[in-house]
Amino acid sequence: MDDLTILLLAGGDSDRFWPLGDKHSIKFLGKPFVYYHLSQFSKLGFKNIVIIVNKNNEAFFHNLKNDFTPLDINLVLQADGKGMAGAILSAKHLIQNKRIIIRNSSDIYEDILLPSIISELKENPDGILTGVSQSSYFPGGYLQISDNKIVGIIEKPSPEKIPSNIVTIAFNYFKDANLLINVLSKMQSTKDDIFEKTIDFLIKEGAEFKFLPYKGYWGYLKYPWHVLDINSYFLHKIKGQKIKKAIIHKSSILSGDVYLEDGVRILENSKIAGPTYIGSGTIIGQNCLIRESMIGANCVVGFSTEIARSYIGDNCWFHSNYLGDSIISSNVAMGAGTVLANYKLSEGSIMSFIKEDKVDTGKVKLGSMIGPNVRIGINSSIMPGIKIGKGSFVGAGVILDKDLPDDRFAYPTKSGYTLKNNNIKITQNSRSDARNKLNL
Amino acid sequence: MDDLTILLLAGGDSDRFWPLGDKHSIKFLGKPFVYYHLSQFSKLGFKNIVIIVNKNNEAFFHNLKNDFTPLDINLVLQADGKGMAGAILSAKHLIQNKRIIIRNSSDIYEDILLPSIISELKENPDGILTGVSQSSYFPGGYLQISDNKIVGIIEKPSPEKIPSNIVTIAFNYFKDANLLINVLSKMQSTKDDIFEKTIDFLIKEGAEFKFLPYKGYWGYLKYPWHVLDINSYFLHKIKGQKIKKAIIHKSSILSGDVYLEDGVRILENSKIAGPTYIGSGTIIGQNCLIRESMIGANCVVGFSTEIARSYIGDNCWFHSNYLGDSIISSNVAMGAGTVLANYKLSEGSIMSFIKEDKVDTGKVKLGSMIGPNVRIGINSSIMPGIKIGKGSFVGAGVILDKDLPDDRFAYPTKSGYTLKNNNIKITQNSRSDARNKLNL
Amino acid sequence: MDDLTILLLAGGDSDRFWPLGDKHSIKFLGKPFVYYHLSQFSKLGFKNIVIIVNKNNEAFFHNLKNDFTPLDINLVLQADGKGMAGAILSAKHLIQNKRIIIRNSSDIYEDILLPSIISELKENPDGILTGVSQSSYFPGGYLQISDNKIVGIIEKPSPEKIPSNIVTIAFNYFKDANLLINVLSKMQSTKDDIFEKTIDFLIKEGAEFKFLPYKGYWGYLKYPWHVLDINSYFLHKIKGQKIKKAIIHKSSILSGDVYLEDGVRILENSKIAGPTYIGSGTIIGQNCLIRESMIGANCVVGFSTEIARSYIGDNCWFHSNYLGDSIISSNVAMGAGTVLANYKLSEGSIMSFIKEDKVDTGKVKLGSMIGPNVRIGINSSIMPGIKIGKGSFVGAGVILDKDLPDDRFAYPTKSGYTLKNNNIKITQNSRSDARNKLNL
Repeated sequence: MDDLTILLLAGGDSDRFWPLGDKHSIKFLGKPFVYYHLSQFSKLGFKNIVIIVNKNNEAFFHNLKNDFTPLDINLVLQADGKGMAGAILSAKHLIQNKRIIIRNSSDIYEDILLPSIISELKENPDGILTGVSQSSYFPGGYLQISDNKIVGIIEKPSPEKIPSNIVTIAFNYFKDANLLINVLSKMQSTKDDIFEKTIDFLIKEGAEFKFLPYKGYWGYLKYPWHVLDINSYFLHKIKGQKIKKAIIHKSSILSGDVYLEDGVRILENSKIAGPTYIGSGTIIGQNCLIRESMIGANCVVGFSTEIARSYIGDNCWFHSNYLGDSIISSNVAMGAGTVLANYKLSEGSIMSFIKEDKVDTGKVKLGSMIGPNVRIGINSSIMPGIKIGKGSFVGAGVILDKDLPDDRFAYPTKSGYTLKNNNIKITQNSRSDARNKLNL
Repeated sequence: MDDLTILLLAGGDSDRFWPLGDKHSIKFLGKPFVYYHLSQFSKLGFKNIVIIVNKNNEAFFHNLKNDFTPLDINLVLQADGKGMAGAILSAKHLIQNKRIIIRNSSDIYEDILLPSIISELKENPDGILTGVSQSSYFPGGYLQISDNKIVGIIEKPSPEKIPSNIVTIAFNYFKDANLLINVLSKMQSTKDDIFEKTIDFLIKEGAEFKFLPYKGYWGYLKYPWHVLDINSYFLHKIKGQKIKKAIIHKSSILSGDVYLEDGVRILENSKIAGPTYIGSGTIIGQNCLIRESMIGANCVVGFSTEIARSYIGDNCWFHSNYLGDSIISSNVAMGAGTVLANYKLSEGSIMSFIKEDKVDTGKVKLGSMIGPNVRIGINSSIMPGIKIGKGSFVGAGVILDKDLPDDRFAYPTKSGYTLKNNNIKITQNSRSDARNKLNL
Repeated sequence: MDDLTILLLAGGDSDRFWPLGDKHSIKFLGKPFVYYHLSQFSKLGFKNIVIIVNKNNEAFFHNLKNDFTPLDINLVLQADGKGMAGAILSAKHLIQNKRIIIRNSSDIYEDILLPSIISELKENPDGILTGVSQSSYFPGGYLQISDNKIVGIIEKPSPEKIPSNIVTIAFNYFKDANLLINVLSKMQSTKDDIFEKTIDFLIKEGAEFKFLPYKGYWGYLKYPWHVLDINSYFLHKIKGQKIKKAIIHKSSILSGDVYLEDGVRILENSKIAGPTYIGSGTIIGQNCLIRESMIGANCVVGFSTEIARSYIGDNCWFHSNYLGDSIISSNVAMGAGTVLANYKLSEGSIMSFIKEDKVDTGKVKLGSMIGPNVRIGINSSIMPGIKIGKGSFVGAGVILDKDLPDDRFAYPTKSGYTLKNNNIKITQNSRSDARNKLNL
C-alpha cells in the first residue's frame, strides 16, 4: 500500500466546539481522540499519512508523531482556503500521483471501516464513498445510489428534497489524487460544498464511485456536547474490571466494568459504577458515587461528590458537588455545594447557544461544558447546557444561566452577578502541591 | 345491626388542607386514610354505610367501594347546606327509620372506639356522644356532664366559659334518625353550630344522651401539617422489620421498625431508621439516611439524601436533598442541593398562612408542604412551614419564603424571584421511563 | 522557690481576638488554654502565682483557681495603665521583695522552657530574657546579644534596622522586682514600649541579663485565626487512639491519632481521620468525615457533614455542612447545605479586617471565625476569612462576604441581605432538650 496515502483532515477551526479547545487532544481512556485514528492506520499497515493541521494544534500533532514512529507522518498547515476543499488542496504537493483515503479527524468509526475500504479496492474503482443510513434528517451530503454505485451527491438538501436516507461520511477513497486536485481547484461555489460538487462532477463525467455502506458506530465532535456521546462509546469498550496499581478501601464498592489506572485511590464508603474509567493518580474521596463516567489523571474527587455520565479532564478538584452529564476540561476546581444542573424543570430538550444561534442539543439531560483552568466557588448553580470559557471564575452562590466567555469572572453582587475581566492566571502547580499534602 | 347505619361525613371542602388535595385519599402505609375507617366498620360486622361526598372526591370513593364489597356503601353528594347539619340532611332519604352512627371522615381513632359505642347500645340510650379530655383550650364543642349523662353542649365557648374539659368528637350515635333530621332541619343559627344546638335542644327536651369517654389516640386532618401527626401514628403501628421482596445491599443498615414493600431497593451505604415505611418499587440510593418517615411507591431517593420525620407520596424524585418534617405529595421532583428548612433560627413555633390568617402550627419543627406535580430546581431553599401548590415550579437557587399558589413558576431573577404562570404540565410518564433506565 | 513568684499577664483586652471572646477560656483537648500554663507551674513546684486579669475574665480565673488548689493564686485587676508595664505595676503590692517570672498568658510554650529558666537561676543573674530566632521579620522586641548576655533591646525596629534575628518572647525573669517596679513606674514613652525601654535602661545601667534561647514550639493567640495553629499544636500531642466510653458503629472508621471522650457516639459510615479530638457526649452522625479537627462536648454533627482542620466549641449543631479551616465557638448551629468557604478562587493569601485594618492572615486556607450563640440558616455561603460576632444570625441563602458584628441578623432580601438588630437570645437549653430526643 505504498502508493496509498491517508489524508487526515484536522485543520478546521473548533469554533463550534468552544469552550473545549482543540478536539483532537481530548483524551479518552487516557489517549487523545486522534490517537485512535492513527492506531487504526498503524494496525492495518498503512505507512503514508498526511495530516492537515492548524496553528492551534500543530504542536500537539508534532508531539503525537513520536508515538507512531513506524508511520511516515507529514503535517501540513491548512491554507486559507476554507472547508474540506481547502484542506485537501493544502496537501496537494504530498499526494500527487497517489491513491488517497480522505478522513475527517473529528469523526470516529469502528475498526471495521478501514478494512472494508481496502477490501473494495480489489475492484479498482475510481472512488469509494462511505455512507450511513439515517432515520431522521441530518444536515450532510446525501447520496443518490443505484446498484451500489453512486450516481450523484447533494450537500445539505432541504429535508423534503433528500434523494435517499444515505448520508456520506468523510471517509472516502480516490484513485487519482491528481484528478481530484485538478477539479477541486477549479470548482466554484457560493456555499461550502466544493468537495461535494467536485465529486458530483466527477461522477457525471463518468467516474465510477462505489458506495460503501457503514453500519457500525459513527461518532463525531462538532458541538461540545458530542463529547458525551464519544465518552459513552469509549466507556462501553471497557470489559470487566481492569485494576492497575490502585488502592481501594475495603468499604468501597466497584460494580460493572471499571478501569482504574496506576495510583488510583478509592477511599472509604464510595461506589464506582461502571462503565467508568479513572486516570492515574486520581483520588476518589469518602462517600462518593461515580457512575458511567471518565475521569482524568491526578484529580481529587472530594467527600460526598457524585459524578454521573460525565467526562472529566486531568487535575480537576471537586468537593461535595453533583456533576451530571457534564464535560469538564483539565485543571478545573469547584467549591463545596456547587451543582451542575442537568435537567430542565420542564423536562424538555436542552438548548445551547453557538455564537448567536440557539441550537437544540437533542439532549434531555445535559449539564455544563467547562473549559480549562476554571474555578467555581461554593454553592453555585450552573444551569443545564451552560458553557464556561477557559480561565474564567464563577463566584460563590452565583446562578449561572448564560454562557460565560473566556477569562471572565462572574462575580456575585447583591443583584445576582456581574462580569469582570479575570486577570488571575491559574496554574496547576498550586493544586499539585496541595494534592501532595493531602491527609485524607 | 341491620337497622344501624354509619354515616361517614366526607363532603366538606378541603380548603384549609391546601395544597394537599382531598384528605381522604392520602395514603398511609400504602392505603388511603379513609380505608382505615371502612376497615373498622367492616371488621365489626357493619353493613350499611352512607358516605357524604363532594364533587372532588366522589370518584375516589366510588373506586374505593370495590375494596369493601361486603359493605353496602351508598354515596351521597353533600347538598348546599353547609357544615355537619347540611351533611346529615343530604342523606336523610337513606337514614329514615334507622339508628345511626355519625362519624367525621377527617378524624382517626383507635379500633377500640367503635366497640365501645356498640357496648353502650345495650342500655338503649337516645344518643351517645363521645368526648375527649383536653388539657388546654381546644376550639370545639364542650360537654356538660352529670352522672355520665350529658346535660348540655356548647359549641366553641370562649376559653373562660368552658363548662368542663371534655370536648365532643364527631363520633356519635342517635337512636332516632327521624327525630334528629326533623329538629336539624328546623334549627336556626347564625353560626356553624346547628348540629350542636340540635343536640342541646334534644337533651333539654328530655332525650337521654350518654357520655362515652375516649382515651385512645385522636388524630385529625384539618390543616396540612396534621399529616405529620397521622404519619407518626401510622408509623408507630409498625412492629419489627417486615421486609417483602426487597433488595438491600449488605452495606446498608436497617434499624428499628421498618416496613419495606415489594420491589424496594436499598443501595449502598444507606441507613433506614425506624419507624419507617417504604412503598413498593421505591429505590433508596447510595449514602442516604431515612428516618421516621413514610415514603410512597416508585420513588427514587437519590445519592446522599436525608429524609427525616416526613411524609412522601408516590413517584417522587430526590437527589442530594434534605427534607425534614415535610409533607410531599405525589410526582414531586427536586434538584440536587435543595433543602427544605424545618427549624427557625429563633427556634420558635412556626406560623403558616391559611388564606389571610396567620396560624400558629404549634410545631417548632415543620418543613414544607408540597402539592402534586411540583418541580424544584437545584440549590433552592424552602423556608419552614411554606406551602407549594400543585403543578408549580421553583427555580434554581430560589429562597422561597412565601406560599406558592397552584400552577405558578417562582422564577429566579437577578433580584430574587418573580412569579409567572406555569403552563408546563408534568406527567408521571417521563419520570417512570427514566426510572426504568436507571443505572445505579 | 518560695520567694519566686510567677506573674501571669492576662489582663489585656482581646479586641483583636474578636469574635472569639476571652482567649484564656478557649478549651483545647477539653481544658482551657490557660490551664496548660498553670499545669506547667504546678508540675515544677511553683507556689506563688499572681494573675493580672480584667473584668471580663476575672470570674473565669476565679473558678479556675479551684482546679489548682496547691498553688497560691492571687488575682489582680489590671489598672488603667496600658500594656505590659501597666500590668506589672498593677501587681506591685504582691511582688515586692520577690524574684519574679513574668509570662504573657496568650502565648504557649513547651514544658521545657520553664525548667530552662530555673536552670539559669543557679548563676544568679539580674534577669533572664527568652528569645527565639526568626527567619523573617516579626513585629516584636529585638535583642542585641553578646556572649550570651543581652546588651540592648529595641521594640519593633523597622525591618531594615533589626539588630539580630532574635526576638524576645514574654517569658522573662527579674531578680529584683522592686527595682523593676521603680524604673517602670518612672519610664516615659509615647509608644507601647515602656517595658522594653525599662529593660534597656537597666542593662545600660549595668544589670546583667542573660539570654535564654528557646527552640521549642511557640504559639500565640493574637488574632482569631491563630486558634488554628494552637489547635494543630494540641492535636499533634495525641498519640495513638485513646477511646473512652464511646460507641462507634462498626461501619465507621477511625484512622490515625484519635481521642474520643466519654459518651462520644460515632454513627454509621463515617470516618474520623486523626489527629482528631472529640469531646464528651458529642454525636457524629451518618456519612460524615472529620479530619484533623478538635470538636467540643455535646455537639451534634449531623448527616453528611465534613469538618476539616477546624476548631469547634461545645454544644454546636451541624447538618450536611462543610467546615474547613474554621473556628467555631460554643452553641453555634447551621442549617443543611451551608458551607464555610476556606479557599479563594485566586488561591492567594486570605485577608481579614481587624477593625479598620486589612490584615494578611498569612493563610491560604482559612474558613470562618464564629463567636458564640450564632445561628446560620440553610444553603448559606460564608466567604473565606469572615468573622461573625456573638449572638448573630445569618439567614438562608445569604452569601456573607463581610464581617458580621455582634447581635446582628444578616437577613436575606431580594437584593442580597440587609442587617437588622437581632433581639432574639438563644440559650443552650433548647438544643440540649432536642439532643436528648434525637432518634438517629
